[in-house]
Amino acid sequence: MKRIAIVGATGAVGQEIIRLLELRHFPLKELRLFASARSVGKTISFRGESLPIENLQDDVFSTIDLAFFCAGSFISKQWVQIARDKGCVVIDSSSAFRSDPTVPLVIPEINEGALAQHKGLISSPNCAATILLMPLFPLHRQFQAKRIVTSTYQAASGAGARLVDELQKETYAYLEKKPYSPFLPFPYAFNLYTHNSPLTESGYVEEELKMADETRKILGDETIRLTATCVRVPVLRAHSVSANVEFAKSFTLEEVYEAIQKADGVKLFEDRAANRFATPVDATGQNEIFCGRFRLDKTQPNTLEFWAVGDQLLKGAALNAVQIGERL
Amino acid sequence: MKRIAIVGATGAVGQEIIRLLELRHFPLKELRLFASARSVGKTISFRGESLPIENLQDDVFSTIDLAFFCAGSFISKQWVQIARDKGCVVIDSSSAFRSDPTVPLVIPEINEGALAQHKGLISSPNCAATILLMPLFPLHRQFQAKRIVTSTYQAASGAGARLVDELQKETYAYLEKKPYSPFLPFPYAFNLYTHNSPLTESGYVEEELKMADETRKILGDETIRLTATCVRVPVLRAHSVSANVEFAKSFTLEEVYEAIQKADGVKLFEDRAANRFATPVDATGQNEIFCGRFRLDKTQPNTLEFWAVGDQLLKGAALNAVQIGERL
Repeated sequence: MKRIAIVGATGAVGQEIIRLLELRHFPLKELRLFASARSVGKTISFRGESLPIENLQDDVFSTIDLAFFCAGSFISKQWVQIARDKGCVVIDSSSAFRSDPTVPLVIPEINEGALAQHKGLISSPNCAATILLMPLFPLHRQFQAKRIVTSTYQAASGAGARLVDELQKETYAYLEKKPYSPFLPFPYAFNLYTHNSPLTESGYVEEELKMADETRKILGDETIRLTATCVRVPVLRAHSVSANVEFAKSFTLEEVYEAIQKADGVKLFEDRAANRFATPVDATGQNEIFCGRFRLDKTQPNTLEFWAVGDQLLKGAALNAVQIGERL
Repeated sequence: MKRIAIVGATGAVGQEIIRLLELRHFPLKELRLFASARSVGKTISFRGESLPIENLQDDVFSTIDLAFFCAGSFISKQWVQIARDKGCVVIDSSSAFRSDPTVPLVIPEINEGALAQHKGLISSPNCAATILLMPLFPLHRQFQAKRIVTSTYQAASGAGARLVDELQKETYAYLEKKPYSPFLPFPYAFNLYTHNSPLTESGYVEEELKMADETRKILGDETIRLTATCVRVPVLRAHSVSANVEFAKSFTLEEVYEAIQKADGVKLFEDRAANRFATPVDATGQNEIFCGRFRLDKTQPNTLEFWAVGDQLLKGAALNAVQIGERL
């Protein structure tokens, strides 16, 4: 029975972690909630108790066994090492340490084994990478992925609760024909934009490079090549991805469907007779990654196309972190 | 000076054609407007006159020189041959005859030459194909496209004015927390779905196969392979596409940007310093296809990624049809 902390407890991911700890009867003897100064004084209900939001202090981590960090890279870079130095194990949902070769990057259904090597810190992956990798992994294990071309359809929630709120307010103003000053440098109501993470010299944005790097690290295969186009769409909280994957080995669609149906955490969601496939609303609030539209891409040998949708805040973030905590 | 007809004058594309004929001073001596029975009796203003909506009759086409058909495949299949038999030349925006080898499929900036072979009927291409091909063509001409992997982000307008209206009404009801019975078998407010054109045995929907077939026909190259994932997003009227293109020849990014900047009907829309690229709202109401994010895909030799956005109702439909009419 552990003493647990959540750093970023009032954010979209933090809120989901609190809900999941309660729902999944996570074994803990104490839960401490940390957030920025402006939330101090508020309380959050957990297992019938009202827990106060606290401000982070160096010494708190000596009384914590396991901390979930979900307050973004900046806070993680500032506090994770302090927590580790006090003997606290950290599960970090930010990108701060994901590319550090000494830090395991874990999706439990895929590479739980990597947890054994942790040195007080485990990173939880990028949400779009997770949603792609959950259905890709069982196929990769059998047929060996070589090259992936993916395009994403990412929800507002990936940029935090503030953008979810903005999308709704801006859309409402648009429909009411009222003036509105958007938070972004362009409209988001009924609009979409290529992902606004920093643009690198290569022409790819960081989100796109993260998908490639994290795919190699999680699958433990430096030869896998991935190229992505990441796009923010006017959807509230589930991400979708289209994937075109070239495998080293040949396969049949029957083998693909069989592998998917046996995979943990992945749900085949399609009704071909009704031409009905997963949408973000279907996947919202669901633990599994929904997938379908597996089809042979005849433009190239051993190539498969598919579609996957997952709740960005659940398997894409909070659920994966909690699952890591459960495995520890 | 010709006698012109528009079949489908009250639809989203028909309305844009009327607007463009006026705006572009299309040479005509008479304009006749046709639509379904329920619109008969209404009028539409054109060059200061009030033109009546008429019902189609077999014999009208003997008094028409050029007809724009934009009422969908069903109407085109029923009436286009009748019009041709009366000596009327048809520009058809539907998919009805696009794959017929005796019918030119034309984007004037790309294959205007194909118009010379017309036998009274020219097809205007699929909107998503047009938006992809406009920036692809100048690159293909120099570097020879071999294989294209594309994902689309298609606006409501591609399914007609009714879906544009539905998206707004359903979204408003969602924001007002009011009950709403969606027109589609799933929600569209803040949601997206893989394109609901008929699903074929291959697992691809017809929209995806159209993009492949029309690309080969318009570029006049049966060896080009294209695989697509078509998705309807909650955007009102401009389509976006991500494209990953393998070329036969090697190229530099400088050559790519030079080719794009010289191409007709294509506008480079990017500000790398501001990390700002084209969005559907930017392209709405614009004649050009906006493109950018050209980047070398290092996962494979001679491969380029890019992003393109275009007004589905303009270059994606009405403008292309009017440009064909201007060239005739």
